[in-house]
Amino acid sequence: MLKMWSGRFTKGTDERMDDFHSSIHFDQRLYKQDLAGSRAHVRMLAACGIISETEKEQILSGLAKVEQALEAGKLSLHAGLEDIHMAVEHYLTAEIGEVGKKLHTARSRNDQVATDLRLYLREVARQVQDRLVQLSRVLIDRAEAESETLMPGYTHLQPAQPITLGHHLLAYFEMFYRDLTRVEDCLERANYSPLGAGALAGVTYPIDRELTAQLLGFTAPMANSLDAVSDRDFVIEFLAALSIIMVHLSRFCEELIIWSNPAFGFVELDDAYSTGSSIMPQKKNPDVPELVRGKAGRVFGDLMAILTVVKGIPLAYNKDLQEDKEAFFDAVDTVLACLEIFIPLLSTLKFNREKMRAACNEGYLNATDVADYLAKKGLPFRDAHEIVGKVVRYAIDHGLRLEELSLSQWQEFSPLFEPDILETVQIEACVAARNSLGGTAPAQVRAAVKRSRELLDKFSIK
Amino acid sequence: MLKMWSGRFTKGTDERMDDFHSSIHFDQRLYKQDLAGSRAHVRMLAACGIISETEKEQILSGLAKVEQALEAGKLSLHAGLEDIHMAVEHYLTAEIGEVGKKLHTARSRNDQVATDLRLYLREVARQVQDRLVQLSRVLIDRAEAESETLMPGYTHLQPAQPITLGHHLLAYFEMFYRDLTRVEDCLERANYSPLGAGALAGVTYPIDRELTAQLLGFTAPMANSLDAVSDRDFVIEFLAALSIIMVHLSRFCEELIIWSNPAFGFVELDDAYSTGSSIMPQKKNPDVPELVRGKAGRVFGDLMAILTVVKGIPLAYNKDLQEDKEAFFDAVDTVLACLEIFIPLLSTLKFNREKMRAACNEGYLNATDVADYLAKKGLPFRDAHEIVGKVVRYAIDHGLRLEELSLSQWQEFSPLFEPDILETVQIEACVAARNSLGGTAPAQVRAAVKRSRELLDKFSIK
Amino acid sequence: MLKMWSGRFTKGTDERMDDFHSSIHFDQRLYKQDLAGSRAHVRMLAACGIISETEKEQILSGLAKVEQALEAGKLSLHAGLEDIHMAVEHYLTAEIGEVGKKLHTARSRNDQVATDLRLYLREVARQVQDRLVQLSRVLIDRAEAESETLMPGYTHLQPAQPITLGHHLLAYFEMFYRDLTRVEDCLERANYSPLGAGALAGVTYPIDRELTAQLLGFTAPMANSLDAVSDRDFVIEFLAALSIIMVHLSRFCEELIIWSNPAFGFVELDDAYSTGSSIMPQKKNPDVPELVRGKAGRVFGDLMAILTVVKGIPLAYNKDLQEDKEAFFDAVDTVLACLEIFIPLLSTLKFNREKMRAACNEGYLNATDVADYLAKKGLPFRDAHEIVGKVVRYAIDHGLRLEELSLSQWQEFSPLFEPDILETVQIEACVAARNSLGGTAPAQVRAAVKRSRELLDKFSIK
Amino acid sequence: MLKMWSGRFTKGTDERMDDFHSSIHFDQRLYKQDLAGSRAHVRMLAACGIISETEKEQILSGLAKVEQALEAGKLSLHAGLEDIHMAVEHYLTAEIGEVGKKLHTARSRNDQVATDLRLYLREVARQVQDRLVQLSRVLIDRAEAESETLMPGYTHLQPAQPITLGHHLLAYFEMFYRDLTRVEDCLERANYSPLGAGALAGVTYPIDRELTAQLLGFTAPMANSLDAVSDRDFVIEFLAALSIIMVHLSRFCEELIIWSNPAFGFVELDDAYSTGSSIMPQKKNPDVPELVRGKAGRVFGDLMAILTVVKGIPLAYNKDLQEDKEAFFDAVDTVLACLEIFIPLLSTLKFNREKMRAACNEGYLNATDVADYLAKKGLPFRDAHEIVGKVVRYAIDHGLRLEELSLSQWQEFSPLFEPDILETVQIEACVAARNSLGGTAPAQVRAAVKRSRELLDKFSIK
Repeated sequence: MLKMWSGRFTKGTDERMDDFHSSIHFDQRLYKQDLAGSRAHVRMLAACGIISETEKEQILSGLAKVEQALEAGKLSLHAGLEDIHMAVEHYLTAEIGEVGKKLHTARSRNDQVATDLRLYLREVARQVQDRLVQLSRVLIDRAEAESETLMPGYTHLQPAQPITLGHHLLAYFEMFYRDLTRVEDCLERANYSPLGAGALAGVTYPIDRELTAQLLGFTAPMANSLDAVSDRDFVIEFLAALSIIMVHLSRFCEELIIWSNPAFGFVELDDAYSTGSSIMPQKKNPDVPELVRGKAGRVFGDLMAILTVVKGIPLAYNKDLQEDKEAFFDAVDTVLACLEIFIPLLSTLKFNREKMRAACNEGYLNATDVADYLAKKGLPFRDAHEIVGKVVRYAIDHGLRLEELSLSQWQEFSPLFEPDILETVQIEACVAARNSLGGTAPAQVRAAVKRSRELLDKFSIK
Repeated sequence: MLKMWSGRFTKGTDERMDDFHSSIHFDQRLYKQDLAGSRAHVRMLAACGIISETEKEQILSGLAKVEQALEAGKLSLHAGLEDIHMAVEHYLTAEIGEVGKKLHTARSRNDQVATDLRLYLREVARQVQDRLVQLSRVLIDRAEAESETLMPGYTHLQPAQPITLGHHLLAYFEMFYRDLTRVEDCLERANYSPLGAGALAGVTYPIDRELTAQLLGFTAPMANSLDAVSDRDFVIEFLAALSIIMVHLSRFCEELIIWSNPAFGFVELDDAYSTGSSIMPQKKNPDVPELVRGKAGRVFGDLMAILTVVKGIPLAYNKDLQEDKEAFFDAVDTVLACLEIFIPLLSTLKFNREKMRAACNEGYLNATDVADYLAKKGLPFRDAHEIVGKVVRYAIDHGLRLEELSLSQWQEFSPLFEPDILETVQIEACVAARNSLGGTAPAQVRAAVKRSRELLDKFSIK
Repeated sequence: MLKMWSGRFTKGTDERMDDFHSSIHFDQRLYKQDLAGSRAHVRMLAACGIISETEKEQILSGLAKVEQALEAGKLSLHAGLEDIHMAVEHYLTAEIGEVGKKLHTARSRNDQVATDLRLYLREVARQVQDRLVQLSRVLIDRAEAESETLMPGYTHLQPAQPITLGHHLLAYFEMFYRDLTRVEDCLERANYSPLGAGALAGVTYPIDRELTAQLLGFTAPMANSLDAVSDRDFVIEFLAALSIIMVHLSRFCEELIIWSNPAFGFVELDDAYSTGSSIMPQKKNPDVPELVRGKAGRVFGDLMAILTVVKGIPLAYNKDLQEDKEAFFDAVDTVLACLEIFIPLLSTLKFNREKMRAACNEGYLNATDVADYLAKKGLPFRDAHEIVGKVVRYAIDHGLRLEELSLSQWQEFSPLFEPDILETVQIEACVAARNSLGGTAPAQVRAAVKRSRELLDKFSIK
Repeated sequence: MLKMWSGRFTKGTDERMDDFHSSIHFDQRLYKQDLAGSRAHVRMLAACGIISETEKEQILSGLAKVEQALEAGKLSLHAGLEDIHMAVEHYLTAEIGEVGKKLHTARSRNDQVATDLRLYLREVARQVQDRLVQLSRVLIDRAEAESETLMPGYTHLQPAQPITLGHHLLAYFEMFYRDLTRVEDCLERANYSPLGAGALAGVTYPIDRELTAQLLGFTAPMANSLDAVSDRDFVIEFLAALSIIMVHLSRFCEELIIWSNPAFGFVELDDAYSTGSSIMPQKKNPDVPELVRGKAGRVFGDLMAILTVVKGIPLAYNKDLQEDKEAFFDAVDTVLACLEIFIPLLSTLKFNREKMRAACNEGYLNATDVADYLAKKGLPFRDAHEIVGKVVRYAIDHGLRLEELSLSQWQEFSPLFEPDILETVQIEACVAARNSLGGTAPAQVRAAVKRSRELLDKFSIK
């Protein structure tokens, strides 16, 4: 097919070539951004006297018609049109004739696509933030309701110390809140306008880059035209931020999967977010957490792809950069889908408080409290630790919980034990004692709920 | 929606859930494999007396109708059907009634999907091999025609020694030939049948796994049912093999891109495989090599995704494994597309022999030959190397090529230089002298062409 | 510092440069391979009349002295020497004088380092195989002893069907056995000699590459000199094989970690392979499985590094390739360390059969057997599945196991239930019934143990 | 060896185990941070009355002695000591006796190591920023000196439009400046104190986390104890930022490598930052740019490693997290080394202005200016583009540059061409015409130099 740029060529491209290098099947998702960019460009051209007011109006009205036709699905976006930029220009010219050919004055696809992509990033980054806020609100509400629910805290997946479920849930709030700020930083760094950089070197027209930047909501024009057309830092940085979100979700998922096993039985997913087996009639599977955990790998792969694509390519634009889009879109779609399913999944999740409390009876979760007890009586902590190690060994060998030891049994290990040790080892007491800032005691959890809501409110106002 | 497995559930799944966990929008590409697996399974069930011959015939004829309807695009493959396996069973039962519900006897989706995926791998691996053979044939033909074409050989992208273009092209044959054998090894290791492993533990029916393996062209049944349903080694290994293919293509692409720059001008892409610029009328861009180079990152990302997905998940099947498919399909599609476009691109590529020969005059490509000259006269190589280093320094400072030095100039550096040094430094002589096995001399290239064709013939017969 | 190659340079390298580009701090681990390659090269030079027999003897005896001095740690391997190749040559010349400078005749560091690396790969690949064999033997022995030990089989980490522990362990044998063959394939493909390729184009001497290949145990010389010096496929392929080994280990680790949690309590690590906590006296942590699971990510990172390094670099040698070594060494060290610690860890692991058996009472592991029971009586499997789903729902609601249902309770769901259903749902019966090839029944496990030993024996003889 | 935590164990760890799980061989690099954390902790314990002032003084003086001994290399840091935290405590107690055992009161290794790592991040992040500032200053100085140096600007590595070298160099300033801000954002997000989170749940002592945070220069304590000990976001985010720095360096390297090839000859590396060949006497290789380009892959691998390590591990601390450090250290060391060598490399780099100017005569860099010329005369840009395409085709066929066309030749293509076209196509004119904001015209470059210095000054003051 003969292309708009084919003046110097002696024959058209091979059809296989059209299919191979065309990006329209995936970059058509940028059509709104492309139209927005074109509108701003045209307004600026007119404001600077590069085209007339009449031409501007004709083009704007043509773009409106193209937009309607696109939204109505009336325009064929075939590979021969190469990309959404050429498609828009093609249909614009078909619509309004010769004047349409002026749209591309003082502009290149290189600055155009970079502009589109930054506008798109802005939109999806806001969506990601919105989902993070929604998910965080569910987390906080559930944490508040479980601020006194006892469960084992684990390290190395071994029982460590008793905690409250509310405290555990709020750990995820902290992660998602960092995600919110990370996406925000990325957005602020990305929100600069490439438009007007031309192919690579700026343009020969008296354009006003401040004006297009302002019309499109950018902070300012990018300062170097070569950088403007070849920079994809913002895609990498955003995919890194998305990867970290997936890390957080994957950790939560791992817990939900383990907690759904009947040996734990801490949670039950709502039937609406579970699936069965084609062969085993009793199965109720935590498919969503498993899939989300798996999809973390997918987003990491997208990040790795874009890093590798950009590595070692010279300035300015290279066609390799076309490979930025599918990885970007895939990562965005994946993260949004995961966040969106997690919101109802989490809000309908059943916590089994009895099983959680019962599990606190296994694994000597209160051993540290005994060491602290001795240390507070003056024994160096390291020695206290060793004595309690022996107590635990004794208890394991006799099949006893620490709560079941008598005072005289305690005193066989140290004369420092007094009657209050029997209260000290109660799980409820252990939890209440961790009342330092950021600790698991219910009082701390309630304070954290309040603080979390305030942080989020500040963010939502944005 | 209520699912086939929903007996124990009290309500249906949320529609968002259907969209999220359904795989039918991408696993429908396995429909042929799924039907083949079902046919083999049904034949085996009848052979083992688990279903009757009549039931077998009914199911087979039903499957045939489902296949026709699928190929005609008459069946809706909506998210509510979950995956291609359930869809086929659903439409089969719609077609032939109750007996359709017997298809899933002694089978689970877990062994079914593993079977489908291995069958699919077999098909696409053969396609990849076929494209590698085709591309190799083009390479060899072009290498033969360029067995005497001189060009600079580079290390560190600096002129190193003169080589023949044919020799250079055949280096890529070696890579693609290793790729062929690597894919073959992967295929042989993958070609075992999971069918009959059931959900994870084998089945309670007197099935004949050897028979289904044989009907489907597998080497043998897999030996452990847990492994059969949870193994995805073959996907990882295949994606690693595909990644290496992309490494090879990306290196070739880098060269084509550099060689297309007018400072080199060694090659010119056919107009049919080049593109222009939307703004710069003179541009003719090597889009295909650039895109292929970029797509290497994409395939690496797919590999990283699947590695990360499978890492650390317990036996046996986990839903995370559903994430194996899209990465797999994407990598396969990408590699096939790259190989397919490279075949005509390479066969239409114009080599500019004059520019290549002219480039041999820059960079002192013959310096090693001078060192060898001295070493052959008894000077330790290390000393010879040092003397020639000084000659080169002298030549650079005087703006001379080594071919332009007079005998007396040579002799100022060493009395070992005799009149034959003037011949020794001719580029043609340098190339002809590298006539050791695997070297760049035209005689070696012609021998390599012959050997390469033989290797390939042996492979093509397969 | 002035270098051996500095003839054409007007000043020495900056010291910071020496530190930056020197590889001797990590490539010194190749010294044995480097010496072996040099010995073969020297023997060949003499055999071909390029150096004299006397010179050969002098160099060989010098190399022997250098080797002794290296092994005694008497030689300084400082950054100024650049790499192990230059260091050996430097100390050789210091040892035997002028004749040492002949060692590098008809050779380049480019073919030399490629040779060293392939020799090294051969050595470590055999070590990896040896550890895989050892680990597999432990697995098989333990599987044999547990061929009748009942435990829950999981899919989605939910109870699925009862299995034998022996069967579960043998699933890992299958994985490690594939690893063995994968490493073998890699080794065979790598075992070709680059020596004699020179810098990139072959050499001008009448060398005998077959001879050096044979002396070094290579299958044959590599066929193309450009490929010989620039190919690193073998590193990538080997790192991909190592990554898959780590996938397998990481899955095993995840299970050991979960099984060590007291809610499961299936296994207890020996004290010798566990650690405690600095603060919590009761802790006994599965550090080894956690670390190994983590180290999977490290090896994947090494693979990603080398893929990215080689992507898009032109022929022939580029300095980027120096970055192949550290990733390679790190992955090899990591995998060997993980396999080596796993052997004693696994052989001392305590299985808690009682806990495993007890866990079989939860999760309705026998539900599939009931569906099969009905299907065998003629009910279509899909209908059987649905009925059993309702039975399970009933049992959950009444807090009953299926083994606790009376015949009349069964018959409320279907008249097809007869007294033998009470036997059918016994866990032992369920396991025994999965006696198809590769199934979990003890008879299958014993057969698999025998087959596995035979496979391994064949491999060990190698 | 019997460990400090071994109270409950019945035997010591296997020596192989000590080697495998010990981290002291790499975490000893955190000793300063560990000591700083311990000092703050001890001061806080005393301030809160948990230990006495005397005990505080004893411990502080003991820590000072341990520090001296460590710096003097007098302490053996063997695997049996596990990690730097235990080693410090061990030697402290050896130094000051029983009171040393009180150091670990109200603290766990989990919050301790998280604190150390954040302190370390802060230090190395500042180092990275410092090197970025230094490198940027060199860039700006050189850009200023080359603000009028003409060279071809490339897209797709094809000649696109003429640019100034100064403009090109400043594109890298933009990248490094974004890197500076990205590292800053990471630092601010990371600079919160985990200390006081205890093992996972907070501690039972009346500690003052605000105080330790303040003593260590943290913004505030982390808000959730579970998050505090298990979060490694800051490592991932920092490695992502380092990866992007490597992307930028790798692109610069690719250009330096290509520009060093004699076909370009745009730059010559100083002898102090180049190397030669062991066999080819004429070689001068751009080793540093090649190595840096390669090392990009290494840092990406480190990022991938840490992402994969953290994916899917449950709260709170897991031993997998020990694998965060080596990847982190390796990436930091690599990036610092690359930046540090780049500073002198860039400041000593020779630009060959003549070759750059000469290269502007190839590739029709001025074609866009002709299209703009016609467009400014009212022709729609798309039509202008097509006409110029034909002009270029004509020029190629006749072996002419556009500057060599006569007015009458121009006018054969369009009557709009007037005498001023002959001036318009002069390379100098083309560059001067791109005087829009961020364009390549010398005036813009000079303005950008000024702005860049101001941005950097603001940063350096920090």
